[in-house]
Amino acid sequence: MNFKVSKRIFYNALQVVSRAISANSPLPSLSGIKIEVNDDHIILTGSDSDISIQKILNNDDEDLNLIVKETGSIVIEAKYILEIVRKIDADEINFEIVDGSLTKISGLSAEYKINGMRSSDYPAIDFSKPSQQFDMDADVLMKVINQTSFATSDKETRPVLTGVNFRCKGGKLECVATDSYRLARKEIELEGDNNFNITIPAKSLNEIVKTIDKDGKVNVCVSDKKAQFWISNTLIQTRLIDGSYPETERLVPTEFLHEMIVDSRDILNAIDRASFIKNEGISIVKLSADSKEVVISSKSQEVGSSTERLNVISYTGDPIEISFSGRYVFEAIRTLSTTTVKIQFSGEMKPFVIKNNEDDSILQLVLPVRTYS
Amino acid sequence: MNFKVSKRIFYNALQVVSRAISANSPLPSLSGIKIEVNDDHIILTGSDSDISIQKILNNDDEDLNLIVKETGSIVIEAKYILEIVRKIDADEINFEIVDGSLTKISGLSAEYKINGMRSSDYPAIDFSKPSQQFDMDADVLMKVINQTSFATSDKETRPVLTGVNFRCKGGKLECVATDSYRLARKEIELEGDNNFNITIPAKSLNEIVKTIDKDGKVNVCVSDKKAQFWISNTLIQTRLIDGSYPETERLVPTEFLHEMIVDSRDILNAIDRASFIKNEGISIVKLSADSKEVVISSKSQEVGSSTERLNVISYTGDPIEISFSGRYVFEAIRTLSTTTVKIQFSGEMKPFVIKNNEDDSILQLVLPVRTYS
Repeated sequence: MNFKVSKRIFYNALQVVSRAISANSPLPSLSGIKIEVNDDHIILTGSDSDISIQKILNNDDEDLNLIVKETGSIVIEAKYILEIVRKIDADEINFEIVDGSLTKISGLSAEYKINGMRSSDYPAIDFSKPSQQFDMDADVLMKVINQTSFATSDKETRPVLTGVNFRCKGGKLECVATDSYRLARKEIELEGDNNFNITIPAKSLNEIVKTIDKDGKVNVCVSDKKAQFWISNTLIQTRLIDGSYPETERLVPTEFLHEMIVDSRDILNAIDRASFIKNEGISIVKLSADSKEVVISSKSQEVGSSTERLNVISYTGDPIEISFSGRYVFEAIRTLSTTTVKIQFSGEMKPFVIKNNEDDSILQLVLPVRTYS
Repeated sequence: MNFKVSKRIFYNALQVVSRAISANSPLPSLSGIKIEVNDDHIILTGSDSDISIQKILNNDDEDLNLIVKETGSIVIEAKYILEIVRKIDADEINFEIVDGSLTKISGLSAEYKINGMRSSDYPAIDFSKPSQQFDMDADVLMKVINQTSFATSDKETRPVLTGVNFRCKGGKLECVATDSYRLARKEIELEGDNNFNITIPAKSLNEIVKTIDKDGKVNVCVSDKKAQFWISNTLIQTRLIDGSYPETERLVPTEFLHEMIVDSRDILNAIDRASFIKNEGISIVKLSADSKEVVISSKSQEVGSSTERLNVISYTGDPIEISFSGRYVFEAIRTLSTTTVKIQFSGEMKPFVIKNNEDDSILQLVLPVRTYS
């Protein structure tokens, strides 16, 4: 292996694939980035076996300045190669295997010889393309992920809840996340006649959001084993979570006794201000509403109390008093990115629904909290 | 206590005094900020008993908009008051003790009632002004601190080495820091006939640097118990470190066998690049120099090796090979803020001296490391 390449482009690509690498990988070779050099392109791979990212650097990109003197492959510890390439003193970098897996990386006056790992020790990852596939605008995919993945569970007791469920049928894609105290559901139309029901780890989705360029297109391919996201020359592949996802439809109330519309920023700020008063680390916020005003309050024996009045844009139903996790409602409203938010209640101990007043495709549901004060 | 004050100015002042507060204060009241309200000014105090910061908000500042309805004092948990004042929805904030130590803090629509602590429970701190004093330009004091405090020890085995020694005699102030592997010495001229020999904790000096506005003046007052730094309406007071500071004069060699001048940025970058190759967490860098070139290299059994050639601006003496802690030499050169650096050696196992080629007031000394390769 012996090649020369643009430092900037190579470094950016290393950064992208390194996102898949875990600090504590069970397999030593997975702490490295695999570099495969072919006549006219380089393939970089990073993986923690749950998520794998592959990036193809192709000579079509003139700025790449790729000159291959000898093909070959090597695996180099991610933290070393990132640091070397970032710091090296040249616009173009030379890579050369000099002895076994000892790799020389050089710029202008600086030269490193780094102990690599044989690429034969790197696990074989199956990157074959599943047959079910569809295209999505990158900004739509980002929105789907941002509006749902925060509501997944971070506990491993029910693994299936640590992912977002994607269910596609009859041209409709329904994406659901729940940690059993709250739920987020997003629906979008999809072209084609795909039919699948898969659960993708939230961790993988969050890496995908970081890698997407919001103006582009994403090609999504799914099977019952894996999902692939192709973003131009970058491929992100993730395993799926086994186990059937719970039916959530019946959890979402359809009839409501109280409905309130308020300014999103007002209520977000008020919940944020009230939330700093915590009880054993959790902020319980009380909302008291009637047709005239909404009062957001919080209370703790140790710290003190807060009260804040909000204007009501509209209110129907009897007055209500309901307590909830400040963080859950804050996160739910924030992801709606709307100026006015509609909150619908069916009782003081019943789950309530938070909606974007102008966009029916997204629904957030939160369970109230019982308080004894 | 009942007053109204500008949110912005009050918040900035709270931030300044809160720097003195430790997360784990032995005395509960020291986790709070003391607010003393007088007819025409407010005094804010934060302290961890080693360092205390006091800020006076005076009605002379028209933007303060201070209206005092009732004088009094209270201590409020720093993290609560900072968060409330930062988040409150108004340009002016009202404070009022409503019941015992329960304090009402209100803006426009938001209102908090926070459990405070009685100011009688706050320790009495002696802020009386010591008699020895001098003025310094703030930028000079910043430079003194930045060029020395990094070289103090972070180990408590010899407490006196965790501070910077300030020794003043005959109009000359000498500031020395050492962790016994390296030493930094800065000398400046001082007006007046002060005579003192004190050691100030590096931790306090680092807080002072953050609080100084570099265009101002600082009034420094010292006794054998404490040092005070007055920066307009802010007073930072620190305890001193007990025990006599070692005599360091004899450690600094005065005769040299080799002298080298190189570009500071070149050698900093080269050491930085070489330093990522660590042995058990420590970067040992080797410098090999002669009249033609300087080679910076590093090596580790596990990772690999690096080599880099630098241009020499001037070199006198026989060739030399010397190994040292990359971090120590990097930090020493960086604080010199100079374009060319002069390094003087008296032997491969002797301490060597790093100087700003254009400024004799600052000297950095580093002990070499023995290597067996």
